[in-house]
Amino acid sequence: MADKLIIFDTTLRDGEQSPGASMTKDEKLRIARQLERLKVDVIEAGFAASSNGDFEAVKAIADVIKESTVCSLARANDRDIGRAAEALKGAARSRIHTFIATSELHMEKKLRMTREQVLEQARLAVRFARNLTADVEFSPEDGYRSDPDFLCRVLEAVIDEGATTLNIPDTVGYAIPELYGNFIRQLRERVPNSDKAIWSVHCHNDLGMAVANSLAGVKLGGARQIECTINGLGERAGNCSLEEIVMAVKTRRDYFGLELGIDATQIVPASRMVSQTTGFVVQPNKAVVGANAFAHASGIHQDGVLKARDTYEIMRAEDVGWSANKIVLGKLSGRNAFKQRLQELGIGMESEADVNAAFARFKDLADRKSEIFDEDILALVSDESVTPDREHFRLLALSQRSEMGERPHATVAFAAGDVEHHASSDGNGPVDASLKAIESKVESGAELLLYSVNAITSGSTESQGEVTVRLQLGGRVVNGVGADPDIVVASAKAYLAALNKLHSKQERVAAQG
Amino acid sequence: MADKLIIFDTTLRDGEQSPGASMTKDEKLRIARQLERLKVDVIEAGFAASSNGDFEAVKAIADVIKESTVCSLARANDRDIGRAAEALKGAARSRIHTFIATSELHMEKKLRMTREQVLEQARLAVRFARNLTADVEFSPEDGYRSDPDFLCRVLEAVIDEGATTLNIPDTVGYAIPELYGNFIRQLRERVPNSDKAIWSVHCHNDLGMAVANSLAGVKLGGARQIECTINGLGERAGNCSLEEIVMAVKTRRDYFGLELGIDATQIVPASRMVSQTTGFVVQPNKAVVGANAFAHASGIHQDGVLKARDTYEIMRAEDVGWSANKIVLGKLSGRNAFKQRLQELGIGMESEADVNAAFARFKDLADRKSEIFDEDILALVSDESVTPDREHFRLLALSQRSEMGERPHATVAFAAGDVEHHASSDGNGPVDASLKAIESKVESGAELLLYSVNAITSGSTESQGEVTVRLQLGGRVVNGVGADPDIVVASAKAYLAALNKLHSKQERVAAQG
Repeated sequence: MADKLIIFDTTLRDGEQSPGASMTKDEKLRIARQLERLKVDVIEAGFAASSNGDFEAVKAIADVIKESTVCSLARANDRDIGRAAEALKGAARSRIHTFIATSELHMEKKLRMTREQVLEQARLAVRFARNLTADVEFSPEDGYRSDPDFLCRVLEAVIDEGATTLNIPDTVGYAIPELYGNFIRQLRERVPNSDKAIWSVHCHNDLGMAVANSLAGVKLGGARQIECTINGLGERAGNCSLEEIVMAVKTRRDYFGLELGIDATQIVPASRMVSQTTGFVVQPNKAVVGANAFAHASGIHQDGVLKARDTYEIMRAEDVGWSANKIVLGKLSGRNAFKQRLQELGIGMESEADVNAAFARFKDLADRKSEIFDEDILALVSDESVTPDREHFRLLALSQRSEMGERPHATVAFAAGDVEHHASSDGNGPVDASLKAIESKVESGAELLLYSVNAITSGSTESQGEVTVRLQLGGRVVNGVGADPDIVVASAKAYLAALNKLHSKQERVAAQG
Repeated sequence: MADKLIIFDTTLRDGEQSPGASMTKDEKLRIARQLERLKVDVIEAGFAASSNGDFEAVKAIADVIKESTVCSLARANDRDIGRAAEALKGAARSRIHTFIATSELHMEKKLRMTREQVLEQARLAVRFARNLTADVEFSPEDGYRSDPDFLCRVLEAVIDEGATTLNIPDTVGYAIPELYGNFIRQLRERVPNSDKAIWSVHCHNDLGMAVANSLAGVKLGGARQIECTINGLGERAGNCSLEEIVMAVKTRRDYFGLELGIDATQIVPASRMVSQTTGFVVQPNKAVVGANAFAHASGIHQDGVLKARDTYEIMRAEDVGWSANKIVLGKLSGRNAFKQRLQELGIGMESEADVNAAFARFKDLADRKSEIFDEDILALVSDESVTPDREHFRLLALSQRSEMGERPHATVAFAAGDVEHHASSDGNGPVDASLKAIESKVESGAELLLYSVNAITSGSTESQGEVTVRLQLGGRVVNGVGADPDIVVASAKAYLAALNKLHSKQERVAAQG
């Protein structure tokens, strides 16, 4: 039997560290369920000690996920590791992932610790973690830029303490496939007890080579775990893309000769869910999950494809979950049909009240849009206002008008807690006027970093618009997403959703990259 | 002195083959000027024989560009090569790039030719091209999947005929760095006269490894030219990204040891221009040119960056042309200041009438928006309606209103040639109503494939919205882009711009990938 390649998804931890990609507990739980359907081996659910919110999210995921191992990140200290273990208590399979930086630059400038201090702290952390769980991963942060002699000492020591997975991050995305692959190989050759652990790679995409570097770590270096994220989400240029790794290993099985547990048909649904939840668009020319990834435009290519599919296609769109839009529901669909569709889409609702709220929004949408696609349903449940009772700011009514040559004008009614506000404003456009009207009452002072709209379902001007608004206030960056066939209404919803996120203050300590 | 790596940009040829990315002659010319500022060595300007429009675009670029070599693609026949030579007549430096498929699959299924026929045609084509110009590039299409023995025979023959560059495409994006690098090396070792030509790589990104494959072709294989596109634009998952190649070679000079002629500070302006012109968004987590590529979100990282920039950054944002938004112009700026700014941004206007039209639009915008950024100016000139006299459909007036609970309504006035139309419609949202109103008179029957909006300038709700509308009609896919502070107006402009592109029918033969 061929070796198994372990897919470790860190969308909910390293991916979420991307500015503006922070998610609520419910959003994380929804994505975790999709990752389980995708059959990833390990889900890194968060960094439990970083905030109460992240602790709760890790705990909720650990309590629900049965098939995948659930993992929490923890710095190399007892408090972080204890919090991780506590959050993971309900998990069927759990892993604690502890890390400390080992490069001279990071030890000196960031940690202000000596080599011996770092070595000792790594050893103690792994020892402590092993007392709490049998599955312990250790990462030397900035490992690729670390002195190999020192790194080998640290790795040997943590294996002795019982670390079961050793992950070697290229934290700054500096590696080249040949060099990174050989680096991993040399570490495995030099560390005397290297065969007692599984080796893992974790690459960033700053030079566009995260996928190739990770695969070189596997092929040349002998690693058997890859850490990656859906859509390559992550800080700066992001992490290694799960979808590209999976399809490279499957398509080039002749070269890699490795088994994967992944159900690739869940890739595109996972990509859409992460994109809709975070508001991070996937560019059309993105491999595997971009809208154009399987499209053929030119005459020669179309002719070629007709004559023999293999002339221009090495993968089949249906294998990664692309399928034609299906009209699944309409105006006459009942609550049961809706609930069943939610289940098929893998959307778990916390309570019957949530189902009822979502169904009410569905009926409202069906009144205005004749064909309801899966994407519409996903947008419906992504929309913060599905659970109006929990949200501070809620849109009640909006009217607006614009005419070329005159100043657009909007009137908005919204609730802030129990108080109802009515406000009017003009603006450069109807969206600007609507947001100004809201801001005139809320006075958040937040800075708008990003405003973008995507039509959720193509093929019709009746599409819903999905608006993402990114706000910054006092160092915090939040995204709000709103969906509605009326783009101005969607914008107001998105703005209020972002304000709700700012309203629910949570302190966080952030993690390694 | 270190070897020089030749950067061959094919944004205007292979990039433009992306569905929906087709550009007008003026748009191509504007991008070609930016590529010259970027100091790319070769600009593949188009495929002259594919259509009269493409011929004119190649000719216009050849007549204007002085620093970069201008290249046209041509199939391996006398007519195509003759047209390419004719279009390139005015160039300071010109190259003809001819190709024919050499893989069994392509020869049998697509060309329906034997090996000997293909070999003979390649030989004759290069011979003919060398009679017309001294700089001839030959590509064996699907080269990476070709039988190496046969491929070596073809390559030896075309070098004998005088081909000066040999380009080995991974047409379907199937390669792996190690394998592709060794493939190029073996070809160079086996072809007896290989030292008489420069070897080139051309990779597609279907498995996410175009950049790593290209660089392996250089490092392991000894190639000295890379074919790439801005933003990795191209069919399916796109081509190799110019910006990632350039920054990898610069950042890892220790490994590659190669010189580049590129002015990297022109990378971000080029990326923005291509994205705005084609309507292909760049995802935030795209390496080098994504909005987040240089951002740091997490507390630890911010702390690290403050303590020492190198802890998390391997490149500097300013080195690739990221700079803070500058307020460059406002309401009181005059025509000369505007014209000078156009020149600084490298925007060449065809005539004084064009400058006047753009200036009128600038004043109109400045009335509504207090701070005009460079991005606003780029959007202004990208907007089709800068040259209203040449466009068939032109927006004259628009008014719309919406109120939650009621059906949105829009009234649009627009010109179609010399005829003025007035139309009203309701719709699911104000955008839907406006497009329906236009469509009620035009009756194009086009299918809407994509609708997206981006705020052009961040940091203010007064941003202009830039709307991209992609339409499909009878197998043709076109993009229309419209910009306005009022998103509904921008949408109507974008829709009319797309209709204008459909209106200017042009037949094209498409090329290799």
